[in-house]
Amino acid sequence: MKKNELKSLKEECYEYNMLLPSLGLVIYTFGNLSCVDRGRGVFAIKPSGVPYETMSWQDIVVLDFDCTIIDGRLRPSSDAKTHALLYRNFNHAGGIVHTHSTYATAWAQACRSVPIYGTTHADHLNHEIPCTSLMSDAQIDGDYETETGVQIVETFAKLHLSPEDVQMVLVASHGPFAWGESAEKAVYNSKVLEELCRMAQLTESLARKPERMKDSLVQKHYERKHGTAAYYGQEKKK
Amino acid sequence: MKKNELKSLKEECYEYNMLLPSLGLVIYTFGNLSCVDRGRGVFAIKPSGVPYETMSWQDIVVLDFDCTIIDGRLRPSSDAKTHALLYRNFNHAGGIVHTHSTYATAWAQACRSVPIYGTTHADHLNHEIPCTSLMSDAQIDGDYETETGVQIVETFAKLHLSPEDVQMVLVASHGPFAWGESAEKAVYNSKVLEELCRMAQLTESLARKPERMKDSLVQKHYERKHGTAAYYGQEKKK
Amino acid sequence: MKKNELKSLKEECYEYNMLLPSLGLVIYTFGNLSCVDRGRGVFAIKPSGVPYETMSWQDIVVLDFDCTIIDGRLRPSSDAKTHALLYRNFNHAGGIVHTHSTYATAWAQACRSVPIYGTTHADHLNHEIPCTSLMSDAQIDGDYETETGVQIVETFAKLHLSPEDVQMVLVASHGPFAWGESAEKAVYNSKVLEELCRMAQLTESLARKPERMKDSLVQKHYERKHGTAAYYGQEKKK
Amino acid sequence: MKKNELKSLKEECYEYNMLLPSLGLVIYTFGNLSCVDRGRGVFAIKPSGVPYETMSWQDIVVLDFDCTIIDGRLRPSSDAKTHALLYRNFNHAGGIVHTHSTYATAWAQACRSVPIYGTTHADHLNHEIPCTSLMSDAQIDGDYETETGVQIVETFAKLHLSPEDVQMVLVASHGPFAWGESAEKAVYNSKVLEELCRMAQLTESLARKPERMKDSLVQKHYERKHGTAAYYGQEKKK
Repeated sequence: MKKNELKSLKEECYEYNMLLPSLGLVIYTFGNLSCVDRGRGVFAIKPSGVPYETMSWQDIVVLDFDCTIIDGRLRPSSDAKTHALLYRNFNHAGGIVHTHSTYATAWAQACRSVPIYGTTHADHLNHEIPCTSLMSDAQIDGDYETETGVQIVETFAKLHLSPEDVQMVLVASHGPFAWGESAEKAVYNSKVLEELCRMAQLTESLARKPERMKDSLVQKHYERKHGTAAYYGQEKKK
Repeated sequence: MKKNELKSLKEECYEYNMLLPSLGLVIYTFGNLSCVDRGRGVFAIKPSGVPYETMSWQDIVVLDFDCTIIDGRLRPSSDAKTHALLYRNFNHAGGIVHTHSTYATAWAQACRSVPIYGTTHADHLNHEIPCTSLMSDAQIDGDYETETGVQIVETFAKLHLSPEDVQMVLVASHGPFAWGESAEKAVYNSKVLEELCRMAQLTESLARKPERMKDSLVQKHYERKHGTAAYYGQEKKK
Repeated sequence: MKKNELKSLKEECYEYNMLLPSLGLVIYTFGNLSCVDRGRGVFAIKPSGVPYETMSWQDIVVLDFDCTIIDGRLRPSSDAKTHALLYRNFNHAGGIVHTHSTYATAWAQACRSVPIYGTTHADHLNHEIPCTSLMSDAQIDGDYETETGVQIVETFAKLHLSPEDVQMVLVASHGPFAWGESAEKAVYNSKVLEELCRMAQLTESLARKPERMKDSLVQKHYERKHGTAAYYGQEKKK
Repeated sequence: MKKNELKSLKEECYEYNMLLPSLGLVIYTFGNLSCVDRGRGVFAIKPSGVPYETMSWQDIVVLDFDCTIIDGRLRPSSDAKTHALLYRNFNHAGGIVHTHSTYATAWAQACRSVPIYGTTHADHLNHEIPCTSLMSDAQIDGDYETETGVQIVETFAKLHLSPEDVQMVLVASHGPFAWGESAEKAVYNSKVLEELCRMAQLTESLARKPERMKDSLVQKHYERKHGTAAYYGQEKKK
């Protein structure tokens, strides 16, 4: 594979990584974004520990799904194996974002899934935002970053969730991952996740025992954006 | 009706829509503003699902009160029917704003009206900010967006409230709507609503059982801004 | 008195008023600042209901301590009588600021004085930030804005507090007032008050029954900034 | 020692002090940074009570570890003795930052150490962020600022903590101190501390009795960044 064939993938990866601090989702090096080229079987990801302010697109690292470095002179994000595992299992994912954004991380640290309290949530997914269970000591002491991905995939399997329908997750004691059909959509989902977590935290502060919203309203809002007869936005959804 | 006659209405709609993200009330496409031309019996509204960053005034859609498109090449906001229903029932409304602003949405998600805790609230309305009851499944499965407007109008009827006196409402499990005699005033009310919700949430965090402020003080602050002998501001109120 | 003699007072008043929105203490017209010329027996104050964005120094209104307009073509802030009463009673005050800043207003709405929880507070005052009691209906129905000032002055008398030592107060169900020997100091005190209120709210959220800090530490921090042997800053305190 | 030999130390001190307000850690004069030249046995520190907006690098004061002024025409920060005591005891420290940042100060005011609730914390230290005990009246009435440093050093001794491993502390009823091998790292630690405190406060608001995260996960995250086989970032750790 010629290296300059990877230039646009690396530029895309750079561009959407840079949105994370400007959207208030990341300080310092608290996050990373990858995007995939399924045809070539590679993904581009932020280098490890490089501050956003000094990073250039040339610093982006390209890996195959076994995390062999295909292109790049720096070490990839230490979370690269989690991204690789997710790309192998979530076939539609075109981009993946991991952050330690404040409110989503607080829910992850409380080891709680985020209940559906309103239509802002239902506009995006008709299920609570799942939080994984805690990893076992064996997983932690083993191939930790791969196991983080395994934990996410197993959570979706256990809950019978499709990663196309639910494009975000909280890893218990850790923080959020979000994905989407493109890097742009993955960033969007990361920002929405943070806002849903903030709204839900405030909702709980106002209501002693807030209830999940009515199921019919959940379905209505989800369907008007994502259903077969969706009428939100400018394009027919598939 | 000649299309260029609608240009100024569309420009006004564009201009005030653009204030919503800059005032921190909207991220992505989480909101919409409309403004009305009562003489022509039409209103202009944001197109559905178009990001604020890429929108131009030419993208604004003009509808009559039955939501027939009079001008515009894009699909209108999916909430257009709610706006239309409100324009038909709230005769003085010149502009309507719907957002998912964080604190107002949290109160709506907690399905709670916002009590009057202080003069900042009483400067704007002498009633709690009403929250509708939950919609019935029949309403949700029916003409949902029109029914959202019906829910608001019925809430005002049941509480004997005038939409000229109370220019904001929370839709349970959903979020806020605000209006005013102009688009500018509707934006102002949306921002004030968000701030009142934030102050009230903090007030409750500080006082186990905060009490509604004294009624005489509510009336005093409301009257000095809005009464027949109002003395706030530079112009006599009607 | 020649009008152009008042130009610098009006410019000063304009300049420090404009800091309030930029410091995040005021949205729209939710606040006002005045500054005094004791020699001439007049004070300059923001006009009522004029947005900060469109205000110019020429819009500032100059009043004597009976609130007779000495200079200016607009109506003064509706709170002008409160300012006048405070200038008559707090002889050292050179500037007064009234805002509805979020956290200070929340404490005022909870009708609570702000306890001393840490040295940030003790660096500025060695007493809790007092909250007035509620006004009587007679006060509210009478000369309301003058009575607001009376309420503040009586609170200080009852608590044996000097307005030179404690330069801030919360008016119950309403919001904060702050003052200082200059307009600059009054703005500083308004910002510090907001931050002290925010820290105290968070402190209470973390500790079920947080305790007032040790008295010896209160005195130490207050004295190192304000005592006869103060050693903070570049100038000897009086 | 020639004064111009100190220019680069003073410029470095100035530059990193100026980051504190821009990172949202300091308003007005609520903080100070120092950096050390171990070869010369001196450190540079912010002058006392000088606002960040008007400060220049020439205002920086250089002291030896007994706080004798070596260079500078202004009085040093009133906390200089705390810095000096820490430099004498924490040999690896190249820079020290003291702020009254909002969330860290709230934890200090609640007199609580910050529990490890997640990997963001464990990425930086594998111990709770310690909060000192309250100072005795004798300490407060004695050489207060030196005693503040003593209190920190004793807290580390009592908990058998290394200041190389744990580079931040809360002083009870006061606020945070952070340090690092350079001024840059000390600023980084101050910002991270504030964010960890904010996440932990939110975590507690979401979980009635949140638990310390699993110990194996604490070690894993700490070791992958700081252990002998660390693989985070671009350089081998020692």
